[in-house]
Amino acid sequence: MKIKYELLKTEKNTKARHGILHTNHGSYETPMFMPVGTLANVKTLVPEELKKEGSAVILSNTYHLWLRPGEDIVSKAGGLHKFMNYDGPILTDSGGFQVFSLAKPKDISEDGVKFKSHIDGSTLFLTPEKSIEIQNKLDSDIAMSFDECPPASASYKYMKNSIERTLRWAKRGKDAHNNENQSLFGIVQGGAYKDLREFSAKETVKLKFDGYSIGGVANDGESKEDMYNAIDYSIPFLPEDKPRYLMGVGEPIDILEGVERGVDMFDCVLPTRIARHGNAFTRSGKINLKNAKYKEDFTPIEDTCDCYTCKNYTKAYIRHLLTSKEQLSGRLLSIHNIRFLIKLTEDIRKAIDEDNFIEFKENFIKNYGVKNEK
Amino acid sequence: MKIKYELLKTEKNTKARHGILHTNHGSYETPMFMPVGTLANVKTLVPEELKKEGSAVILSNTYHLWLRPGEDIVSKAGGLHKFMNYDGPILTDSGGFQVFSLAKPKDISEDGVKFKSHIDGSTLFLTPEKSIEIQNKLDSDIAMSFDECPPASASYKYMKNSIERTLRWAKRGKDAHNNENQSLFGIVQGGAYKDLREFSAKETVKLKFDGYSIGGVANDGESKEDMYNAIDYSIPFLPEDKPRYLMGVGEPIDILEGVERGVDMFDCVLPTRIARHGNAFTRSGKINLKNAKYKEDFTPIEDTCDCYTCKNYTKAYIRHLLTSKEQLSGRLLSIHNIRFLIKLTEDIRKAIDEDNFIEFKENFIKNYGVKNEK
Repeated sequence: MKIKYELLKTEKNTKARHGILHTNHGSYETPMFMPVGTLANVKTLVPEELKKEGSAVILSNTYHLWLRPGEDIVSKAGGLHKFMNYDGPILTDSGGFQVFSLAKPKDISEDGVKFKSHIDGSTLFLTPEKSIEIQNKLDSDIAMSFDECPPASASYKYMKNSIERTLRWAKRGKDAHNNENQSLFGIVQGGAYKDLREFSAKETVKLKFDGYSIGGVANDGESKEDMYNAIDYSIPFLPEDKPRYLMGVGEPIDILEGVERGVDMFDCVLPTRIARHGNAFTRSGKINLKNAKYKEDFTPIEDTCDCYTCKNYTKAYIRHLLTSKEQLSGRLLSIHNIRFLIKLTEDIRKAIDEDNFIEFKENFIKNYGVKNEK
Repeated sequence: MKIKYELLKTEKNTKARHGILHTNHGSYETPMFMPVGTLANVKTLVPEELKKEGSAVILSNTYHLWLRPGEDIVSKAGGLHKFMNYDGPILTDSGGFQVFSLAKPKDISEDGVKFKSHIDGSTLFLTPEKSIEIQNKLDSDIAMSFDECPPASASYKYMKNSIERTLRWAKRGKDAHNNENQSLFGIVQGGAYKDLREFSAKETVKLKFDGYSIGGVANDGESKEDMYNAIDYSIPFLPEDKPRYLMGVGEPIDILEGVERGVDMFDCVLPTRIARHGNAFTRSGKINLKNAKYKEDFTPIEDTCDCYTCKNYTKAYIRHLLTSKEQLSGRLLSIHNIRFLIKLTEDIRKAIDEDNFIEFKENFIKNYGVKNEK
């Protein structure tokens, strides 16, 4: 069965919408934050922990799983859900973003992208068909079309050629797709160019995908303004009855800005990555638990947080683990940070239901700037 | 309240004994394996996981906690249980072993040991009184007397002087002890010298401790023979109504040999340390999950194992995590390895109850030699 998006309510003052994503692995409300499990695990965590903190869809990376352990091993294991023991829905990206960000140098042709593995430097070739074949074997619930992710600095001419090729790649991928239990999303590109975003969105929608992603907003170099514009330029041309996914975005304020513009799904490595550096989200901004001022702070990261970490551990304990380089610190902070973003989407859904999204957003942003510890 | 040891049964053919250790944090059966939580956490794991796998007492290291975060911070947190969120019993060592193994150079006098911190090279001084004072503040259930751990290669003369001083240190520590909810163990030393073990045991028992440890068997350099002899030389002089703890020992066969000789408690970093290198205990011996032969092995580490890891993950998945350097591998393997040793003690207790310990031990050892993958 393909996924199905059910729109419950659109907030009266914005494009923010509350919906339900029905999948083969359960039905989950949107807007939704998806934790990233790059190599078939959300770093340091097990599925039971993720589910306890309210996770729904998690994301895994096709490029990484293609290289290690290889899609055939995952397939022989019975697919990604069984391999990694996650019985909720899984979304896989196309590998495109990693090819364009991790693997250098690269050689782009109509056929696909030739590049060097970031692991051993061997030459690899990824095509739209190959990306879909890998994802078919991984057996995720939602697959992505293979796309080029040009940098924000790309010229108009380059971007136009690129999105036209990405559209041809999307068509080829759709034709190659062969897994009736897996949905396939098209990806809107076009950088910060309004007409190219419109063109890309309209042409991608013509190909009739199960959902639509907005890409090219989380490369290095895009400004916040570019990101918000890219969403504004794309959303009006996406169908109401399909989910919209803003790729690679997880800063709390960006989630709010995305929701306001009509986005349903978000993913980002941010909560686990900043955890490894000692950072925790709070309603007042990010704090760093390595900071000496937390040495004797026997309160949780946030008194009001309902995550496992906040219910059981103090800042002083987490700081001790961090300064002692104990891996448990990353685990406890990852749990908190993931819960923080999931809880944010829960609060957002409530604000949508109550038609006070703008007030909710403004209050959140006002408080969020207070702290910003590196 | 001090701990209380209740002897349930001594096996008819050996000195193996099944008992119960009553503590302020619950009553638990012996023989018992105690996981090691050096820096106020059993590496990568949370208390809930340890308890699910049957853990009872866990061990934490006084030397490490003295240096980081410092006993005063733990005390301000409400003691070690509250600091690390473990509501089962906790045993702390004296710091002696770490001073003699980690911190070099050192300067031993009647008063105590002057040495350099392994973290920043600063000069530190640890005395019997200081060790006890730190442990009093950590508020563990069971504290250890401060002792010297001479290497197995020490001369008879050195060893004799050392155990005499360790006895004077034991007395000083006992006099300094000031925590009525904390029990204090004396430590028998004497290397591989029969008469010195006897002397050390008898004199230590005269000081009337709440339990007795056998030390100096897990330094570098002791042979298995030395270890088994040290137990044989010590146990006959220890009281029946007090628990006996063999320090730093956790190889499955050594646990069996220890139990046969009348030991009740064991601890070792082995299950978590080998986990970080990809090793797992099995009934056939240690295996290494990095081994290419596990690439497509979609079975658990052991079919018969009831641990969380074996119930949910395959060798192929753990191998993938290991080769991808994902920290979750160490966590999953630590859970399995800790459960393996705890399960071994459960089986041992059953064998004691059924008076077939020797048969159980011989069967275990016969199978255990089959595999030994590095």
